[in-house]
Amino acid sequence: MARTQGSHSDITGPRIRKAALHLFARYGYAAVSMRQIAAEVGVQAGALYNYTPDKQSLLYRLMRDHMEELLAAQKALPSQDCALDALRQFVGFHIRFHMQRPEEVFIAYMELRNLTPENFAEIEALRRDYEDALQGILVAGQAEGVFALQDAKIATLAVIAMLNGVMTWYRAGGRLSLDQVERIYWDMVRKAVAA
Amino acid sequence: MARTQGSHSDITGPRIRKAALHLFARYGYAAVSMRQIAAEVGVQAGALYNYTPDKQSLLYRLMRDHMEELLAAQKALPSQDCALDALRQFVGFHIRFHMQRPEEVFIAYMELRNLTPENFAEIEALRRDYEDALQGILVAGQAEGVFALQDAKIATLAVIAMLNGVMTWYRAGGRLSLDQVERIYWDMVRKAVAA
Repeated sequence: MARTQGSHSDITGPRIRKAALHLFARYGYAAVSMRQIAAEVGVQAGALYNYTPDKQSLLYRLMRDHMEELLAAQKALPSQDCALDALRQFVGFHIRFHMQRPEEVFIAYMELRNLTPENFAEIEALRRDYEDALQGILVAGQAEGVFALQDAKIATLAVIAMLNGVMTWYRAGGRLSLDQVERIYWDMVRKAVAA
Repeated sequence: MARTQGSHSDITGPRIRKAALHLFARYGYAAVSMRQIAAEVGVQAGALYNYTPDKQSLLYRLMRDHMEELLAAQKALPSQDCALDALRQFVGFHIRFHMQRPEEVFIAYMELRNLTPENFAEIEALRRDYEDALQGILVAGQAEGVFALQDAKIATLAVIAMLNGVMTWYRAGGRLSLDQVERIYWDMVRKAVAA
């Protein structure tokens, strides 16, 4: 059976994304050319343009897909009976989701400066959706009387920043298992927002 | 009076550093050439080599000087009678010091990947010295019975990551003053490590 254009793109697309992700994370978006990405994939530069109109679109799609996967996975978490359980679940989810995607995390932070204003606005909106999910948990916990926050928005950003820090130092096979890391961070997050 | 070579370098050095810092933060180290830095300063590329042997040395010196200034400023803080006061002082210091240096902070995180192994090891050693200062406060607080930590090293990294998050969202003239930000973060840090 002849291979269709569709199935060809299905195979090449993920390889292009993987190569672009890796090269952007290693050298930075501005230093990487479409030609380099094509060479990494093992195709002619022209083949890339069947998949993406330009490098900016490639960066934007990488960042958008990362945020959309994050949001979909977060929304699929089982609902919890109380804010404390929901926060514990969020902490474990956030650490594990991002630990599996170090290059996406690095790019999501580092390459915001290289998005066009329109693309930046869309990525920021997705980021705010995710922050809103955590903020909703914190505000619910305040209503339940288990959390006390001077500022729910800042508490949201502080918790996410604290958890993102794990990605900068954690190495599999190091002193601590991921379960231990999760317990240590949960202890600190829980106390930081406690009433 | 003739301008000496020394005084010429004294003027040009800071301008080169400022231009390199700005261009690295904007486009990334790998995407910026010595020629671009020279153009930004308004000198010939050759003039740069009177100041620095190469681009790697320039990046290393920017990162080293940033860490050394941070360490010197931290060591110059007045000593405190108890760990709780020392931690409060550290939190305020860390936020304000970094808030004045957004480009240095961005580069310190983003361009570690572009340091040679030797330069990376030196920057990491300085970073550990700074972390050790905070860890010393946390461990002293544990001995005093005011702090309770499952892991002092991880608590140190978590507090620094939480505070560094301020740099990604704070804008002068926004909803919150720096004093308010400092109080909100202090409340969360204090609780996160509390006994």
